[in-house]
Amino acid sequence: MAKIADIYYKLDPWVITEQGFDKKRNEVSESIFSLGNEYSGIRGYFEEGFGGDTLLGSYFNGIYENSPQENRVQYKGIVARSHFMVNAVDWLYTRITLDGETLDLAQANVSDFVRTLDMRTGVLSRSFVWQTKNKKKVRLHFERFLDMTHAQFGFQKIQAEALNFTGEVTFELGADFNTIHQSQEQNFWQEVYKQTNTLTSAIIGKTITTNQKIYSGFKLKANQSLETVSVERDKFIGHKFNVKLEERRLFEVIRFSTNVAKKKDIDTEELLEIGETLLTEQIETYEEAKMRQAAYWADIWQNLDIIIEGDELNQQGIRFCIFQLQQTYHGQNPSNNIGAKGLTGESYGGHAFWDTETCCLPFYLLNNIDAAKNLLEFRYQTLPEARNRAKELDCKGACYPIATLNGNEASDLWQHASLQFQPSTGVAYGIWHYMQVSEDQDFLMSHGIEMLIEISRFLRTRGDWSPTGEFGFFGVMGPDEFQMMVNHNAYTNYMAKKTFEYTLESLEKINDQFPERFTELVTEFALTKEEQMDWAKCAEQMLILETKDGLIEQHDGFFKLPHVDIKKIPVEEFPLYHHWSYDRIYRNDMIKQPDVLMFQFLYNQDFSHESKRINYEFYEPKTIHESSLSPSIHSILAAELGREREAYEFFGFATRMDLDNYNRNTREGLHTTSIAAAWMNIVYGFGGIRTDGKELVVAPMIPKQWTSYSFKLTYHQTLISIHVEQDTVTLTKVKGEPITLKLYGEFIEIASEPVIKTIHL
Amino acid sequence: MAKIADIYYKLDPWVITEQGFDKKRNEVSESIFSLGNEYSGIRGYFEEGFGGDTLLGSYFNGIYENSPQENRVQYKGIVARSHFMVNAVDWLYTRITLDGETLDLAQANVSDFVRTLDMRTGVLSRSFVWQTKNKKKVRLHFERFLDMTHAQFGFQKIQAEALNFTGEVTFELGADFNTIHQSQEQNFWQEVYKQTNTLTSAIIGKTITTNQKIYSGFKLKANQSLETVSVERDKFIGHKFNVKLEERRLFEVIRFSTNVAKKKDIDTEELLEIGETLLTEQIETYEEAKMRQAAYWADIWQNLDIIIEGDELNQQGIRFCIFQLQQTYHGQNPSNNIGAKGLTGESYGGHAFWDTETCCLPFYLLNNIDAAKNLLEFRYQTLPEARNRAKELDCKGACYPIATLNGNEASDLWQHASLQFQPSTGVAYGIWHYMQVSEDQDFLMSHGIEMLIEISRFLRTRGDWSPTGEFGFFGVMGPDEFQMMVNHNAYTNYMAKKTFEYTLESLEKINDQFPERFTELVTEFALTKEEQMDWAKCAEQMLILETKDGLIEQHDGFFKLPHVDIKKIPVEEFPLYHHWSYDRIYRNDMIKQPDVLMFQFLYNQDFSHESKRINYEFYEPKTIHESSLSPSIHSILAAELGREREAYEFFGFATRMDLDNYNRNTREGLHTTSIAAAWMNIVYGFGGIRTDGKELVVAPMIPKQWTSYSFKLTYHQTLISIHVEQDTVTLTKVKGEPITLKLYGEFIEIASEPVIKTIHL
Repeated sequence: MAKIADIYYKLDPWVITEQGFDKKRNEVSESIFSLGNEYSGIRGYFEEGFGGDTLLGSYFNGIYENSPQENRVQYKGIVARSHFMVNAVDWLYTRITLDGETLDLAQANVSDFVRTLDMRTGVLSRSFVWQTKNKKKVRLHFERFLDMTHAQFGFQKIQAEALNFTGEVTFELGADFNTIHQSQEQNFWQEVYKQTNTLTSAIIGKTITTNQKIYSGFKLKANQSLETVSVERDKFIGHKFNVKLEERRLFEVIRFSTNVAKKKDIDTEELLEIGETLLTEQIETYEEAKMRQAAYWADIWQNLDIIIEGDELNQQGIRFCIFQLQQTYHGQNPSNNIGAKGLTGESYGGHAFWDTETCCLPFYLLNNIDAAKNLLEFRYQTLPEARNRAKELDCKGACYPIATLNGNEASDLWQHASLQFQPSTGVAYGIWHYMQVSEDQDFLMSHGIEMLIEISRFLRTRGDWSPTGEFGFFGVMGPDEFQMMVNHNAYTNYMAKKTFEYTLESLEKINDQFPERFTELVTEFALTKEEQMDWAKCAEQMLILETKDGLIEQHDGFFKLPHVDIKKIPVEEFPLYHHWSYDRIYRNDMIKQPDVLMFQFLYNQDFSHESKRINYEFYEPKTIHESSLSPSIHSILAAELGREREAYEFFGFATRMDLDNYNRNTREGLHTTSIAAAWMNIVYGFGGIRTDGKELVVAPMIPKQWTSYSFKLTYHQTLISIHVEQDTVTLTKVKGEPITLKLYGEFIEIASEPVIKTIHL
Repeated sequence: MAKIADIYYKLDPWVITEQGFDKKRNEVSESIFSLGNEYSGIRGYFEEGFGGDTLLGSYFNGIYENSPQENRVQYKGIVARSHFMVNAVDWLYTRITLDGETLDLAQANVSDFVRTLDMRTGVLSRSFVWQTKNKKKVRLHFERFLDMTHAQFGFQKIQAEALNFTGEVTFELGADFNTIHQSQEQNFWQEVYKQTNTLTSAIIGKTITTNQKIYSGFKLKANQSLETVSVERDKFIGHKFNVKLEERRLFEVIRFSTNVAKKKDIDTEELLEIGETLLTEQIETYEEAKMRQAAYWADIWQNLDIIIEGDELNQQGIRFCIFQLQQTYHGQNPSNNIGAKGLTGESYGGHAFWDTETCCLPFYLLNNIDAAKNLLEFRYQTLPEARNRAKELDCKGACYPIATLNGNEASDLWQHASLQFQPSTGVAYGIWHYMQVSEDQDFLMSHGIEMLIEISRFLRTRGDWSPTGEFGFFGVMGPDEFQMMVNHNAYTNYMAKKTFEYTLESLEKINDQFPERFTELVTEFALTKEEQMDWAKCAEQMLILETKDGLIEQHDGFFKLPHVDIKKIPVEEFPLYHHWSYDRIYRNDMIKQPDVLMFQFLYNQDFSHESKRINYEFYEPKTIHESSLSPSIHSILAAELGREREAYEFFGFATRMDLDNYNRNTREGLHTTSIAAAWMNIVYGFGGIRTDGKELVVAPMIPKQWTSYSFKLTYHQTLISIHVEQDTVTLTKVKGEPITLKLYGEFIEIASEPVIKTIHL
């Protein structure tokens, strides 16, 4: 089941370039060339329209619709109706007509096509020469970017130059709410307002069942005066104008867009006023805005960049990962989260999963602590929905959803939504992990502890006692989704044990240090000593099945399952979900993604080297990595265990999964949360960073294929840079107080002078 | 969770009577007063129309539609589209209008209402006095019956007598395909033909996606000449006529109906000809047909009746059970089967389940061996669909569906359709059981062995080897549907072991006695010695988890499940499926219905008294009997174990489950397969009959509440009657050769003289 690269874009450390247009790859390129700014995302579709395969996708974080169909199976606790991030306004809508021929790259005679995404500026540009049936040639150039600091602003530049004629070209530029949500084959928008004036237009669309509104307004500015005609169609507003192109003279039109998306119901008048004010305030020139954008990215790269010498593919790959992760989320708004495909496609419904806390959080913890906090704030804001979900499951406390946009459970597959508790233990883990890095007592005291109490309550009521007095979870599915309805899944039991313990430890600390707050909590949550003692007992008696050699049994009975030799599964049977009978996946010792190894990674320092070795050696050969996160976790553990070759093999395509379309499904959108895992793969894997103990652990290795690599991170407010060469590692304090950390197991202080040490393998 | 009787109908040994009309119970009464003749069934709805709650249901065995909606979850092996028995033509359609007021018992002023179902004739009649708003009084009398021997014929009689006036009444009688399938809130019929002549009408309807057709024709005969007008509406044909009612003179109109339903696609012309020929041949008078019907039932009761002295409730109850079972199925056509609700409602989609072979078959085995054979022939006819299903599950051989009308799997709940193999092992059991009673070598040689080979192949490929060399089934759900995705479910393993063994034994026998047939099978099925040896090894190494005391573990890990004290579950939480979170049902030691006890009942003589005692005592207190079959199986085992009180308690409402609406859902239809279990409860339970050994076993007990009871059965072609009083049991050979059987463990021969023995407790 080797994955094979489909290398297509040009190799360059900072720019993704498509030279020449390949229709068949159009949807893949739309994903690769996605722009986003957390607030919204826009796929790299051709704004002038495209008659071939395309997913014209424009998404706004938290703007969603309910599934049109109810779930046919309606037992208690089974989600009746799902929800999904809905395809929204095409605010780049453009049509260009010359001699009655409308430009469409699916049909047109085109040469010199080049498209580039510059990761230093976040600008996507595209140039080509269009030759009409009448042999007229026009060079066209398009640019677009989404403002990273003024999230409602979007920019489009169109340049046209007649190469062999002088004549009239017709442009139509608009904002279009007729977008089809592709997976539902349906449009989900109602028009509630529209208006045009000379050179400005505005339209407000409203979702059908969720009553969310988006204002989309724009103004045009050209390098010659335009006589425009308003164009109004259902759910569409725009301008049409004719331009006389003089041979070899550049015509340019700029669109300044303002898109305001409101998650909560808002009055149309009120939204209109917000939108119009913003549109009016947009007074910079296009070039000024672009410079501001470049400055933003320069600042970001200053700290976020990972430099790899000697490996151009991974250098470009990791920058693409960091660029897309930053575009998807940077902590702008605590009501946003990170969808499995970011804002780049419809797949997975735009839902956030437990990947947020386990795979994405570390990136922010070490680079942008406020963003990390906001990810946890999202869970605090959705605590009421999690409480409600726990009730649906006949439990107390709060149960976090396996998939969600708005805090409610969106997965209508009961076998996932009702059996997987990774999201709940993941939130508790996220709080704990955030506290390790930030020491933000205020957060723990205020919001953190409330979530911890509610999650512990949920776990207590969902778990149960075996007749012989062990606590554990019955009828669950752990991270290894190839084992369903099992008892004593080690991951679930272990993570729950840690949750109970951390909740109790936090309560004790608050009681010691802030007795008033403790009293408040006791009252607010009707918290009794008995309940706390009960949690302590559950944690103490939690069953973790382990042989005397330290091999942990993934669940009770795992060792008795029939064996499948995964090497013998023919490559054409992957992905198994599509080729194997559904039930067949669940009755053997094959593993989809790390389960025991996952918690040995998350609470890394709880386990001895020997325990990690034994479990890695047992479980790795049984794992088929049908989750794209899986290889990175294995790579990190392989690095730790000194299995250098495996560490590099598993790292393999991590940074270039989408650029080289390894899974052949990049057309559906980018694997955003796998992108986060790729980052972890370098920092936690090769860099040997560990953040799950009292102090920062650094233990770098370096693949022999690389000359050097460097990255920066902030820990306890100190920014340090780590530079690793084949022989040495150099740690430098860039900003902040001196810091003591553990390098290859030894405590060292990083102060004003860089510390240089020999690589320890 | 005591079930409480809702006694409503009059107590009488042969007649079910409703005295006075209760609107609120209308749908329950419609179920109770259902008529059927295997070919079709008609609920006891008011043919004149009813404005209150009603389920106007008319069903034809094997006439079905595909579900309009596809299953949203479409993994391999998950049924994409279900099918269901579709509500068909209302061939009793009647409207009666007087002074512009149309009779509707939901509104009308009605007195002297009485409705009776006479189980000696199968005739349903209804009388009442209708007083119009103008104070005119008419006594109306309706009768209907479905011909038991000429299955296409149905009869309706309407009598009207003006009590206090002379005046005109308008009748409209028609055949109506506008019936709404209630659970889908949709009509599924297209009209393909209609025609009226004086006094006769015919219409042909066609299902939308399955292209099945029904011809419905009728002719009218009145005791005065009628001037009729044709009435044609969409999907409707009929006659309208005015009748001048003379005060105190009886008007009578008879409808002779012919309904021809074709499961396979048929030309409209051809069907029309069949229908018209049959309608023309219907030349008896109504009274002649009714007498013929009474003679049929008299003959049936001759052998099928169970007489209970000293218990009027159960006397009426068991007769109602036998009557309804005979109406539902009597082996008329091997392409018919027995739906969970018979032909009396839409619930369970009209599907047959594994109840057919395990609960219904014994009734026919001992009373109507040809019908028993036809039930197995149904499985032979649907062997191609079962083969196809096995393929969908990535297996070889044949997998019988958990729910079906046409042989295809109809359950789109994968957790049942892909994890339950009771239907497949049930068919093998049915073949074996049939052979015990019939000794029909021809059937085994021809059809039986082919099914056995294919089922064994399926079981071999669905089962697997544990690393320590035991064979068994992983990821299954046994009869106890409260344990999902378990390994080594004892029922599945045991039944599979027996299937392998019986298949091998049968093959050996055929090889010995009919080597030519054996050679044929070897060729046709590419049967190798290796495959047979492999099955033998699977049977031998089949894992049945059992303590040294003989307690069988329901599945691997069952003894380690959290305990639920089922006595402490509040009554309002039943049924649990409606009140408990779906996942909560699956993670404790509560049992829905017998699992270990089920196979100890089916292969009763394989187990020692001690083993049955130990398992009964362990599992019975954990069982909540959420399946209506469960109490009867427990009653039978309790009787065997000498637990007289429990045997009678579990018998409890068995015979009157529907008459007294114990489950409060009789409105949806009768619990037809539970009716079969009620019969078994008396014959196998109190009667102590066992048919799973080399000879017939008889070991009656008698509840102390009864004076006596008697029943008849045919075993190896000999008809015997068994009469049980408080002290003695009398066995009499009624017909056939003398027979040797085992009475209380002793061999006795029943020849010309009755054998009288003391009851052995």
